[in-house]
Amino acid sequence: MEGKMRGYAMMDVNKTDWVEKDIPQISPMGALLKPMAVAICTTDIKMVKGMFGPKHNRILGHEAVAEVIEVGSMVKLYKPGDKVIVPAVVPEWGAIASQEGYAQHSNGENGAWLYSNLIDGVFSDYFACPEADANLIPLPENIKPEHATMLCDMVPPGFTSVELAGVNFGDTVLIIGIGGVGLMATAASYMRGAGTIITVGRRQISKDLAKKYGADYVIDYTKGEIYEQVMEITGGKPVDCVCVCGGTAESSYTTAFRCVKPGGKIGSVISIAATDKISISGAINAGMNDKMIIGAGMYTGRAKLGKLAKLMETGRLDVKPLVTHVYHGWDELPDAVQIMTDKPDVLIKPVVVFD
Amino acid sequence: MEGKMRGYAMMDVNKTDWVEKDIPQISPMGALLKPMAVAICTTDIKMVKGMFGPKHNRILGHEAVAEVIEVGSMVKLYKPGDKVIVPAVVPEWGAIASQEGYAQHSNGENGAWLYSNLIDGVFSDYFACPEADANLIPLPENIKPEHATMLCDMVPPGFTSVELAGVNFGDTVLIIGIGGVGLMATAASYMRGAGTIITVGRRQISKDLAKKYGADYVIDYTKGEIYEQVMEITGGKPVDCVCVCGGTAESSYTTAFRCVKPGGKIGSVISIAATDKISISGAINAGMNDKMIIGAGMYTGRAKLGKLAKLMETGRLDVKPLVTHVYHGWDELPDAVQIMTDKPDVLIKPVVVFD
Amino acid sequence: MEGKMRGYAMMDVNKTDWVEKDIPQISPMGALLKPMAVAICTTDIKMVKGMFGPKHNRILGHEAVAEVIEVGSMVKLYKPGDKVIVPAVVPEWGAIASQEGYAQHSNGENGAWLYSNLIDGVFSDYFACPEADANLIPLPENIKPEHATMLCDMVPPGFTSVELAGVNFGDTVLIIGIGGVGLMATAASYMRGAGTIITVGRRQISKDLAKKYGADYVIDYTKGEIYEQVMEITGGKPVDCVCVCGGTAESSYTTAFRCVKPGGKIGSVISIAATDKISISGAINAGMNDKMIIGAGMYTGRAKLGKLAKLMETGRLDVKPLVTHVYHGWDELPDAVQIMTDKPDVLIKPVVVFD
Amino acid sequence: MEGKMRGYAMMDVNKTDWVEKDIPQISPMGALLKPMAVAICTTDIKMVKGMFGPKHNRILGHEAVAEVIEVGSMVKLYKPGDKVIVPAVVPEWGAIASQEGYAQHSNGENGAWLYSNLIDGVFSDYFACPEADANLIPLPENIKPEHATMLCDMVPPGFTSVELAGVNFGDTVLIIGIGGVGLMATAASYMRGAGTIITVGRRQISKDLAKKYGADYVIDYTKGEIYEQVMEITGGKPVDCVCVCGGTAESSYTTAFRCVKPGGKIGSVISIAATDKISISGAINAGMNDKMIIGAGMYTGRAKLGKLAKLMETGRLDVKPLVTHVYHGWDELPDAVQIMTDKPDVLIKPVVVFD
Repeated sequence: MEGKMRGYAMMDVNKTDWVEKDIPQISPMGALLKPMAVAICTTDIKMVKGMFGPKHNRILGHEAVAEVIEVGSMVKLYKPGDKVIVPAVVPEWGAIASQEGYAQHSNGENGAWLYSNLIDGVFSDYFACPEADANLIPLPENIKPEHATMLCDMVPPGFTSVELAGVNFGDTVLIIGIGGVGLMATAASYMRGAGTIITVGRRQISKDLAKKYGADYVIDYTKGEIYEQVMEITGGKPVDCVCVCGGTAESSYTTAFRCVKPGGKIGSVISIAATDKISISGAINAGMNDKMIIGAGMYTGRAKLGKLAKLMETGRLDVKPLVTHVYHGWDELPDAVQIMTDKPDVLIKPVVVFD
Repeated sequence: MEGKMRGYAMMDVNKTDWVEKDIPQISPMGALLKPMAVAICTTDIKMVKGMFGPKHNRILGHEAVAEVIEVGSMVKLYKPGDKVIVPAVVPEWGAIASQEGYAQHSNGENGAWLYSNLIDGVFSDYFACPEADANLIPLPENIKPEHATMLCDMVPPGFTSVELAGVNFGDTVLIIGIGGVGLMATAASYMRGAGTIITVGRRQISKDLAKKYGADYVIDYTKGEIYEQVMEITGGKPVDCVCVCGGTAESSYTTAFRCVKPGGKIGSVISIAATDKISISGAINAGMNDKMIIGAGMYTGRAKLGKLAKLMETGRLDVKPLVTHVYHGWDELPDAVQIMTDKPDVLIKPVVVFD
Repeated sequence: MEGKMRGYAMMDVNKTDWVEKDIPQISPMGALLKPMAVAICTTDIKMVKGMFGPKHNRILGHEAVAEVIEVGSMVKLYKPGDKVIVPAVVPEWGAIASQEGYAQHSNGENGAWLYSNLIDGVFSDYFACPEADANLIPLPENIKPEHATMLCDMVPPGFTSVELAGVNFGDTVLIIGIGGVGLMATAASYMRGAGTIITVGRRQISKDLAKKYGADYVIDYTKGEIYEQVMEITGGKPVDCVCVCGGTAESSYTTAFRCVKPGGKIGSVISIAATDKISISGAINAGMNDKMIIGAGMYTGRAKLGKLAKLMETGRLDVKPLVTHVYHGWDELPDAVQIMTDKPDVLIKPVVVFD
Repeated sequence: MEGKMRGYAMMDVNKTDWVEKDIPQISPMGALLKPMAVAICTTDIKMVKGMFGPKHNRILGHEAVAEVIEVGSMVKLYKPGDKVIVPAVVPEWGAIASQEGYAQHSNGENGAWLYSNLIDGVFSDYFACPEADANLIPLPENIKPEHATMLCDMVPPGFTSVELAGVNFGDTVLIIGIGGVGLMATAASYMRGAGTIITVGRRQISKDLAKKYGADYVIDYTKGEIYEQVMEITGGKPVDCVCVCGGTAESSYTTAFRCVKPGGKIGSVISIAATDKISISGAINAGMNDKMIIGAGMYTGRAKLGKLAKLMETGRLDVKPLVTHVYHGWDELPDAVQIMTDKPDVLIKPVVVFD
């Protein structure tokens, strides 16, 4: 499709505005998409603040549910009019990294994080998706677009952290951070058969939702050292697994290391800036004691995310409580971005719906 | 057996001497052993310097080949007169950690590192081994005791680092540190089908042996930044796996992170003091990029070490070049400890043989 | 303890009776136990029929909850008066097979299946358990002994089959056989985050319980070929994983192979006699297509089963519906054995309680 | 490219001939290739015999080294004139099966085995390769085309069987079948650090090459039962791993099961016809004893095969001895097919070179 379109962009560090651009061209395996709903991510806010370097005229956004407008000649599974969930990460599946099981790095480190990072994002009249058959997930009929956006970038890292941490039947799991991602890690830990789930947060809404999603305990990190509070719960026993879904690399990793048993795994899905340090102190005696840190972005692709969509479709996973603020139409998009910047205590996730 | 024995002990920080103690009692599953050869470890030196806390009257040493003197009532596989290799780490195999695959932590973090750490060590007329059937390895007939000591604590961490790093056919492997352990990691990488092996060291003897054990390249870290030298060799491509067998946690981990590909594993077997920091900087963009650090002591037990003994027995693994300095009799033990303290450039490993 | 005791034994093929024997001696790591409740297993019935070879004067039974009467000198975790769950399989944890992760084969193939197979079983006034610390699980205070017996040999193989089959978030799982073990596989699949659970059975009680434990579909194998019925449910798509918990090796394995996707795993926990054939036909084109059969007994030990006990203690796993028939006292034990032999359609599991 | 070309085809069961066809069109990600060397596979012969069903006018062959003639618009890594190795299996990398790690099944079971099976093969003036960047491997400069053909379908299944069987340091490995694939399994087992390698064959050339590639023992299956001969070598101990690279599913699998330890893995890469039965008898007591059969085709793709090419390039893997018979030009192709049909005792692999 030829023509012009409008998008909401990062013009420079700490500066956003509407821009006009050409509608993007699609490749033979790609699809042109039109947003039905988009969600705002903390990463959008961090990006505007310059955490991922300066960007100019870059359209923001990487969480969208959309309608297919046009498909390339090699697309077999989708056609115009189809409704799809678009993952935040859209790899090139034949790349070496993808063949080795790390599709998210298919064009170098985090190279498959295209939207808003390497190309224009989804806060736009139209956007293109490469390798549509491999990347897009059909929108389940019984899920509303605003809720389905939770599959783009909230559900996958939460579930990824739980797989990385190797949560198994009866395990005691510590989840540091219970924003949207940590809440999904809580749901995933419960769904994977954890025996005891201990979560760490501060805000009331997060505490309430953590309980709803299966947490047995909710620790408030403002009420004392996390390690001490965990040991009180476990009777001094280290936990089996840790999911790091919030905090800083330094504080969360040090806590995770102190709390986890030798042989235990720490699955981390927090984002760390190039200027940050991973730092772990005071917890180590004669080696790392087989405590493994596995830090990832998240898995993606129609195979994996299609399975998570199935859990939403069958009602096993209810993401509706994550969508605390719904906005309508492009005019309200800046308000949604603003509330994510302000992050009031009652917010989990703002979504904008286009009717 | 009842009676007195003599041992070489850490009396206090930076102070060693001979002590007299009672011959230790054995449990029904244990064995009383008499050293045929012992090797000195860097860890002995670090211990005397207080790196693992103050210790008093603690007999040193955790690498020994020995003769069985007496066995407990439940021992089935060994009898007095048998010659055995004694691993540095001797777990309790029924413990929870052991059942979960981490026997080295069977009495808490590194709890199976008994000798010199939690009980008296092997630089002694006699010492006891718990769970003899599970822990001792029969000395192969064609291996001399002084060479067999290399299986106690040099071969296992080297091979462990390679398994942790997931070295596979055709991989490009970076090995940081080529003392005894790093050289064994080099041999193990080659033996596991690596395609390109890049090692990092400084001393001529280490460089020569690295080549002998299969290194394709030997980088001298005094000649420029390791990362730059690695990239020059690979044409700017990250490596598949890293074995950390030397250096500090801060420097080696930061280098390892920079050099490894997303999805690549870093197997670390260096010892880190409680006061050390694990610190990784400047290498991360938006997360850890699925770069995994797996830091362990080493695997142990008759099953695993028996297989490595097999490689020595069949000649596939030649450990003789590691034994650069051989001493004779208890009188020369302090000399062997001293040379390990001085660490001249020509030294890999000093061993004391008792005839 | 010295003295005589009474037990219910297989005297010969198809012949059972009460016998008097000496109370067994315990080893330094062992414990003498007195049953509080025992459950009858299909395996007891198969054994009496000679499926595992002829046996004489062998006391039957391998599922018991018991009180500790006496402990060996090396036992640290238990003392007389403690109430414990006794796994059907009680390994020697230092054996090579155990060190390699296969404790159930610690004295050769299935060598840790001691009770009734290699030594006298638990249908007896007293019985001994080797390596008590490693093998026994503390009875949770809120679980009755008759229900706790389900942890001996029903819960573990069901959960094992699910781990072997690699059930993951959103997967479509096929469970062949919904007796006690298959029902636990159903519960475990649900608890592990399966998306769609298809079970295969015939009896009404099994069908009802399968639904209760999380099955989305219950196929009746008397109503048509299993493969056809599965394909009708999935719209012709192969399933992700199969748990084989019933049927014969020939029929169930052939069905499993036809139904599973390439790369899918088949976790089998059925017992196969030495005279049986594993046979798979008509489902293979140019190789096995990466369809993996993993046939095991079940995992065991205080680490693993302690975690499953945790799930029972917290109420996440409710095993009460499996105990369909409760008997009281030794006099009623033969009735319990008889009903397991007759296997009426309303039976899942008969248990005998001793007050 | 437009025009006609000639190829050597299966006209019908047991009938081959030359055919003329249109030069195939390439997709945007594909490449048109011209053979520099092709190898004949047992599978070509089985196909002609009808083992994979009747086929008409289907050009044979799936092992080729070729020159790139033309590339699609999306191909980034190759250009006309490049010399490449073409794997026998060329997947669609974005398919669900590929995303799940089983690219060889990207269009259903064995769906990525295109050449000669689902589309025309490589015994032709020209042939097309889909997803060229992901599938083709650059021909190393120091490897001749006739030798490089061994990477298409000999090296990968051999190495795959070793990975499936989980061969590890010091293991005792049994390799059943030492044709080209079994010989590569022998080389791979040695290269992976096996302790003892026992191979099974009959022909002198295979026995000699097995020794050359690292076998410690070569059993002749015509001289007595394999199981008995293996047990004589091991002193009655089961082996750690088995690679099935020859024989029938029934005989080889039954032997593998008898010989392997509980917990041991059997990696099978033999092809099994739809009419064959997998059948295992007489080896099982009360279950499959955690003996795992993993039957696959082979891994493929530029990532994995590129690593194996590296081993050939560096000289660690010498495939030259496999190429026992070299033919020149299209006119000699039928002779090469004929000798593979006749399979004289001195033959491992016939190759045709085009100058």
